[in-house]
Amino acid sequence: MTNQDNDQTGRVDAQVFSGVCMMADAAARAQRALEQANTEAKNELLLAIADALDARADDIAAANAQDMQEAFESGMDEGKLDRLRFDVDRVAASAQGVRHVATLPDPVGQVVRGYNLPNGLRLNQVRVPIGVIGMIYEARPNVTVDVASLCLKSGNAAILRGGHAAERTNAATLRIIRDAIASHGFDQTLVNTVDDYGRQGATAMMEARGHIDVLIPRGGAGLIQAVVRNSKVPVIETGAGNVHIYVDRSGDLNKAIPIILNAKTQRVGVCNAAEKLLVHRDVAEAFLPLAAQALAEANVVLRADERAYGIIDAANIDGIDLEQADEQDWDTEYLALKMGVKVVDSLDEAIGHINMHSTGHTESIIAEDYSAIERFTRLVDSAVVMVNASTRFTDGGVFGFGAELGISTQKMHARGPMGLQEMTTTKWIGYGTGQVRQ
Amino acid sequence: MTNQDNDQTGRVDAQVFSGVCMMADAAARAQRALEQANTEAKNELLLAIADALDARADDIAAANAQDMQEAFESGMDEGKLDRLRFDVDRVAASAQGVRHVATLPDPVGQVVRGYNLPNGLRLNQVRVPIGVIGMIYEARPNVTVDVASLCLKSGNAAILRGGHAAERTNAATLRIIRDAIASHGFDQTLVNTVDDYGRQGATAMMEARGHIDVLIPRGGAGLIQAVVRNSKVPVIETGAGNVHIYVDRSGDLNKAIPIILNAKTQRVGVCNAAEKLLVHRDVAEAFLPLAAQALAEANVVLRADERAYGIIDAANIDGIDLEQADEQDWDTEYLALKMGVKVVDSLDEAIGHINMHSTGHTESIIAEDYSAIERFTRLVDSAVVMVNASTRFTDGGVFGFGAELGISTQKMHARGPMGLQEMTTTKWIGYGTGQVRQ
Repeated sequence: MTNQDNDQTGRVDAQVFSGVCMMADAAARAQRALEQANTEAKNELLLAIADALDARADDIAAANAQDMQEAFESGMDEGKLDRLRFDVDRVAASAQGVRHVATLPDPVGQVVRGYNLPNGLRLNQVRVPIGVIGMIYEARPNVTVDVASLCLKSGNAAILRGGHAAERTNAATLRIIRDAIASHGFDQTLVNTVDDYGRQGATAMMEARGHIDVLIPRGGAGLIQAVVRNSKVPVIETGAGNVHIYVDRSGDLNKAIPIILNAKTQRVGVCNAAEKLLVHRDVAEAFLPLAAQALAEANVVLRADERAYGIIDAANIDGIDLEQADEQDWDTEYLALKMGVKVVDSLDEAIGHINMHSTGHTESIIAEDYSAIERFTRLVDSAVVMVNASTRFTDGGVFGFGAELGISTQKMHARGPMGLQEMTTTKWIGYGTGQVRQ
Repeated sequence: MTNQDNDQTGRVDAQVFSGVCMMADAAARAQRALEQANTEAKNELLLAIADALDARADDIAAANAQDMQEAFESGMDEGKLDRLRFDVDRVAASAQGVRHVATLPDPVGQVVRGYNLPNGLRLNQVRVPIGVIGMIYEARPNVTVDVASLCLKSGNAAILRGGHAAERTNAATLRIIRDAIASHGFDQTLVNTVDDYGRQGATAMMEARGHIDVLIPRGGAGLIQAVVRNSKVPVIETGAGNVHIYVDRSGDLNKAIPIILNAKTQRVGVCNAAEKLLVHRDVAEAFLPLAAQALAEANVVLRADERAYGIIDAANIDGIDLEQADEQDWDTEYLALKMGVKVVDSLDEAIGHINMHSTGHTESIIAEDYSAIERFTRLVDSAVVMVNASTRFTDGGVFGFGAELGISTQKMHARGPMGLQEMTTTKWIGYGTGQVRQ
């Protein structure tokens, strides 16, 4: 899906809107039955979905081949084509992912707080599913499987709008998932798609307040901002990561280089990859030539501010691609082998720069000084703050959630990686014996 | 403030918008300093505010007398006039409330989850303030004090829009609060008001996404819906309570009558007061005449469906005010000495009726049957479900939160009474020793 697909600010067609609302209401009714299912029943459903995906992987791969062909002919770039591919091997990997979700602890029913009031009323705050979760995402067919399995495991229904380019693949995948749901005695409207409505489907989802409980956009910054700005349904903002690493004057440079290399190059184009390197002036002369050399060897283009440029340029590093940064750089998520480099006069300048320019995803400090670390972790206003560790660890799988629906960069409801627990809300239950209020 | 005051769907004036954004940005900068203050410092600030309110209560009362006079002359009804009153006694009560907030546990810094990853990275998920909280509320000056104290204690800044009718009172109150903040070394922009911008101020707050972190409307259904529908800032929906009590066929009728009376009449016009009574048909004949008599003695008008009407009417209760309900009744929050009464054929009909018509605030079941209670508490989709207890217990004070900012009826972020903890988000901090991702 290109951003334009969902960037609909115009009015939604009344018939599409009513169709999407009815779909969401049917999903809500089906969800009430799923909510009552115990964990065993939900796990069996997931295993059945995984088996069905394996058994009918050829159907999905055939549909995907058609999507791939059309996307190729329309000139889709290689990176997007790769994300669109859902061949038999990738379907098998997705099926394994579903089996893994089946092994995760079920958050539903967990007692978050529980205590007796002075009058004897026994209060429990219990985790319950949110209800109907809407997901608008780009053309990555594996997301269809991930979202379906996470929603079902956490007792939620899902209304999906995948990217236009993956419509055949998603339809084939959903057919299999829905067949498995129905043959397990649940209502197949638990997982549904608005793809038949095309672009208008996404617009209708954003309008469907009171029908869809929460909307999660997943994809590029353009898609996410379009949903955030236009949705009447509560949104969880995900994703964009203008991620910083700050090397303090107390930093251990032997830790710094491997962490920076890992954060920048271990995987490019992901939201937890580092985009900016801030270095304290006291260690800039000693550290920047080493860092620049390591990054140059990994083919990272450096976009440096004046001071950093001077120091790196003077080091005459072989094969380096060094450019002067402009003001735009500090707000740019490159998603490429490119890194902004800046020398700062103090810890507080680094913190100020980060809080001004970061998207609030992940930042890391390389430091040994206790007070600097305490100050950085307290003052930096991001979902995740790492100390002497790679920013690439911000991930639901790494955090032990087993799987993730995305990484929230907002402060409401969930912040950081969103796993099964973040797909729940709570309900208070008060067990009384006739108490009345005085 | 009438609902119309904030029911602005038109464009906001550019100058007002930029003024409100600058105000919020100043509040955000001040908030970063407050966030670093320890609990002792915040408590001292609260105690100073309480003392200042006591010392200058006459100023507030004088301003309030002017507001009261103007409101009276413009024909404000008695209930609203009473809520607008902020005389010396009420200011003293508010000051005591601030002192109580000072005694409450500080949620900031609480570790929600903490564990080591297999690679040794030590992960802590820690509560932190949300940032800048916007509050749009009706003409109840005590809310100004409540919100300021709760926001400051939880490390947040507050941007307020109180009702037009209370503008002089709120200005006098805020002057005192802000003086106390400044004389305690904090920035007085921590608590600010858009009242100078009049109605446009509220509209600008709703547009100020990225400047205000969360917007909480508090007041009547019209105000809340206007904010929910028009805000680009994430909103926490509060308040409206179409609250049900269901008397199961297994219900102990000796518990039922006091609970119903308490829930309906202990305080009228509050969101946790019961509005509807559903009675299982098997106990309707025995129970409804008793309940109707008790309610009639308390001057409650009964709006009954056909079966309930027949049973109650046949009982010839002295002085009863019995009317036939129409379909609108089931969706109406009376906020008055009035109650809808309906006979249902089954537990599941009661649950279905509630999930169809409730605002999701609080419901109560009167029952002794274990399975009926389990089914009701699991299937009813409301923030709070009571068993054999009055619905009036849904309250932050009663729940032990000490004070509340409102009662959330939505599923995102917070559900039920919102205390200090609900005014926080979390931040993940990963303490490493050089870890990189494989």
